[in-house]
Amino acid sequence: MSKISKKIVERLIIYRRCLIRSSVNSNNTHIFSHQLAKKSGASSAQVRRDIMGLGYSGSPAYGYEIKSLVDSIGKFIDPVKREKIAIIGLGNLGKAIVDYFNKQSLEMEIVAAFDTNPEKVNRVLMGCKSYHIKEMKSIIKEYDIQTAILCIPSINAQEVTDELIESGIKGILNYAPINLNVPLNIYVENLDMIAIFEKVSYFARKNNK
Amino acid sequence: MSKISKKIVERLIIYRRCLIRSSVNSNNTHIFSHQLAKKSGASSAQVRRDIMGLGYSGSPAYGYEIKSLVDSIGKFIDPVKREKIAIIGLGNLGKAIVDYFNKQSLEMEIVAAFDTNPEKVNRVLMGCKSYHIKEMKSIIKEYDIQTAILCIPSINAQEVTDELIESGIKGILNYAPINLNVPLNIYVENLDMIAIFEKVSYFARKNNK
Repeated sequence: MSKISKKIVERLIIYRRCLIRSSVNSNNTHIFSHQLAKKSGASSAQVRRDIMGLGYSGSPAYGYEIKSLVDSIGKFIDPVKREKIAIIGLGNLGKAIVDYFNKQSLEMEIVAAFDTNPEKVNRVLMGCKSYHIKEMKSIIKEYDIQTAILCIPSINAQEVTDELIESGIKGILNYAPINLNVPLNIYVENLDMIAIFEKVSYFARKNNK
Repeated sequence: MSKISKKIVERLIIYRRCLIRSSVNSNNTHIFSHQLAKKSGASSAQVRRDIMGLGYSGSPAYGYEIKSLVDSIGKFIDPVKREKIAIIGLGNLGKAIVDYFNKQSLEMEIVAAFDTNPEKVNRVLMGCKSYHIKEMKSIIKEYDIQTAILCIPSINAQEVTDELIESGIKGILNYAPINLNVPLNIYVENLDMIAIFEKVSYFARKNNK
């Protein structure tokens, strides 16, 4: 599994979420590929191929053992250490994201937040400390943070991104509705919520014509 | 342009965002395909093909006229009337989404919110009125709402989805980390923020090895 596609990584992450939920909601210890396919929205063949790619195999009689499959996916996907994340922008959306991430996720935590508003800095929200954005570079280096969530208006997004990269950030989840220019070794995932909703709206109309 | 792919719709939506921003930030009235490509992250060939598909053409000397291209994309993508949206779940994330949408978007508005918490109902947030979830069906029908944002825990998501579909909802933006079972004519876009961030984290590590 030398060169792994974005789609396979996306599916493995979804499988793990489904497996964990499935073992919490029921007392099942095993799951068949067609059951995992239904829960995850993938096809049975995709599930089998992706999991075979991990070097993991199930039993024809019982299916996959949920706990050990979750571990196998984790070994493949997760960082060795707990992921520390920075967030830039503590508007309502930024604050809600800190709250959501730090409640939901065990493997990662937003540890530092940055804003320009003096009323929003030097506080602690759900375990995440907030700083003035002029401290961003030094704090990111001090904490050895590799990934960041960008939750600021488009107009400042490129400038802040350049600073993030200088600080050592390698991956960005970008909520600002703008395409960021970054070097090839920096991974950016754009999450423009309005654009995503416009797509929902379009297909909701088209599918029902 | 009879059968249009999800990817083309996604790109047209992004082009429009880039065009609007470009005309606000500068006084340019025209843009070349390679400039729009750079701003949107698509290739120049894709930009030209997608826009040709709209039946719109630019001038070799001046490029596309920004304002009329924005109008052409709008005619293709936008609903005839302003889109009215329902949101289910007024936790911190739900509230931040109402605030974000109703500040940012002119073409669509979250008009009704639903929650089970008595303290969160019968209020108005950024022009959006909140109701108890037991009123959901009647309010959605009364407002003739076609699209919804689901922002509730996974455990209730399928049950609420079934009710949304009974109420006439055709498209759902789903923030709950669960794959919803829906009929073929219902469009669902999943936006599991933790799963998306796990992907950012994975590729941030891999690209830098």
